[in-house]
Amino acid sequence: MVYGIIFGANSYEHEISIVSAVVLKKVLKAQKKFIFCDDKKEFYLIDEAKMNAKTFSSGAYKKEKQLILKQGGFFIKNLLGDKKVEVDMMINIVHGKDGEDGKIAALLDFYGLKYIGPRLEASVLSFNKIFTKLYAKSVGVKTLDYKVLNLHQDKNENINFPCILKPARLGSSIGISIVKNEEDFKYAKDIAYEFDDDIVVENFISNIKEYNLAGCMINDEFCFSMIEEPKKNEILDFEQKYLGFSESNKISEADISEELKQKLKDNFSKIYNPLFKGALIRCDFFVIDDEVYLNEINPNPGSLANYLFEDFTQIINTLAKNINLEKQIKIDYKFLHNINGQKGKL
Amino acid sequence: MVYGIIFGANSYEHEISIVSAVVLKKVLKAQKKFIFCDDKKEFYLIDEAKMNAKTFSSGAYKKEKQLILKQGGFFIKNLLGDKKVEVDMMINIVHGKDGEDGKIAALLDFYGLKYIGPRLEASVLSFNKIFTKLYAKSVGVKTLDYKVLNLHQDKNENINFPCILKPARLGSSIGISIVKNEEDFKYAKDIAYEFDDDIVVENFISNIKEYNLAGCMINDEFCFSMIEEPKKNEILDFEQKYLGFSESNKISEADISEELKQKLKDNFSKIYNPLFKGALIRCDFFVIDDEVYLNEINPNPGSLANYLFEDFTQIINTLAKNINLEKQIKIDYKFLHNINGQKGKL
Repeated sequence: MVYGIIFGANSYEHEISIVSAVVLKKVLKAQKKFIFCDDKKEFYLIDEAKMNAKTFSSGAYKKEKQLILKQGGFFIKNLLGDKKVEVDMMINIVHGKDGEDGKIAALLDFYGLKYIGPRLEASVLSFNKIFTKLYAKSVGVKTLDYKVLNLHQDKNENINFPCILKPARLGSSIGISIVKNEEDFKYAKDIAYEFDDDIVVENFISNIKEYNLAGCMINDEFCFSMIEEPKKNEILDFEQKYLGFSESNKISEADISEELKQKLKDNFSKIYNPLFKGALIRCDFFVIDDEVYLNEINPNPGSLANYLFEDFTQIINTLAKNINLEKQIKIDYKFLHNINGQKGKL
Repeated sequence: MVYGIIFGANSYEHEISIVSAVVLKKVLKAQKKFIFCDDKKEFYLIDEAKMNAKTFSSGAYKKEKQLILKQGGFFIKNLLGDKKVEVDMMINIVHGKDGEDGKIAALLDFYGLKYIGPRLEASVLSFNKIFTKLYAKSVGVKTLDYKVLNLHQDKNENINFPCILKPARLGSSIGISIVKNEEDFKYAKDIAYEFDDDIVVENFISNIKEYNLAGCMINDEFCFSMIEEPKKNEILDFEQKYLGFSESNKISEADISEELKQKLKDNFSKIYNPLFKGALIRCDFFVIDDEVYLNEINPNPGSLANYLFEDFTQIINTLAKNINLEKQIKIDYKFLHNINGQKGKL
């Protein structure tokens, strides 16, 4: 199995995606090809030896082979005939816009490449926090109460303080503010509106219990990661979140009851099946008075949440074997033949 | 303004899309280029003179110029350098899969082409009838009560008869059955499962009042079509639905009160704004005891519902002037520079 790891793209989380890809280079013990989508959305095949931060931040990636996406795959441009980049399975590790909003999924489906990652519907429902709440409710998973503000339809909503403001379509803590009073509220709105026309406002509950659980479904069986209790006040802890792959850095499982563990898994299952089939996702939950609430779905979690799995490579390999191409429809033109025969109208 | 009309693709409604494009050739009085996506998802530039059913049903389209989609547009392959197809505004008239599920929208956004049509989120929420119901409820629009059946999770749902079964993700009446009793129910499920893993079941209400309203938003103002009361028992009435562009064929407005007209427009507005900005959509409503219920959203209605508008070309021209490219994000690599400087880790 040769993996094609696609990363980058035009997203506020472009750089996080590069970090995720560099981490996958180390933790995914398999043959890999690295397909970088730059901020102008041109594709490049990056030599594995050059998969480091500097290749991208210096612009040196532009010296690598440029690719074009056509039916059947990515191709290296060549005057004597384009040469296909041979991969068996793409892994979508673009975070945020382009990657998690459904565009990369759409491209891969349209051009007939198999991939690990959320499909189009799963992307749209998890990328937009408002839709996530509607979806979660419909499958019987609780979320915190919320209000929606829109830049173009600003209503006088009755807001309780303290509250938390989140742009509707961003991850990685970007544009998020915790607000204690009316004065700070306007400023926090301006920050969030920098990133999105829609803002989700929730009551802020300090010291809320948080648990992260990753997993996927393989052959109708769930495969769960360990449950992590993330540390607070660490917006981006590289050692743990992204580079946490060495033995000495292992995360330890959250110290919670078996009953709560099962509740978290049950909620994960309701969210995952069948919408997220084909993806390895991480769900971040809150727990209040033993009740589980979904905070957010990360359909392409940072470095694929590898640090939460005992044997990450094996899970990816097994998941990959169970992924099919989108079903195609046969067109027979019976209908047009019929019109032509009967009416000669078209 | 030169329009690029994209049609066809791998969809059960592939042939209807060809009909829509042929109709637009006649009713859209503007410069047009026709970009056909065949069932293998290869693109062709079709000479306007060849825009008739036979070009497609005979396979003759394959002799036309093949196109590739790259950053900035569609290009005619050329050994001495690809030549761009100059268009100002694409019109997405692919019906069903690929076109209304969000893939064409994703491609056009990704490759930086302006277009008339639903954006990615709007596509996903209107293509899937289950999501449409969740969305409608969230914006205060009623829909009929429903149950969802899934091929892989078949539960014993308590179904009332008569009922109507619809595959969750299809338009144009495909795979739909009206069922009067338990015996016919299994057969109807099998038909619907041919097309989709998810089925929506609603009570069937005979002689329900139906009204269709199309429109779009231009400069924060709604522009509505006339309201049509579609005729019953006509699955595909070409003269009216698709070819209804000649004077003699004009639809007459539904004979309903001004109050009900306003109710229909109010419901349309709640559905449209802001999710469907950039698209001209048709909403199909039911009316029961003066209450309005959304039946379905057609984000790329057949031949863009031109037959419902007094001056279709002018509406398209004005809408087109108000459409922008997706906002792009500037990547500065500050974050990676920072990691490199501090840790030398990546």
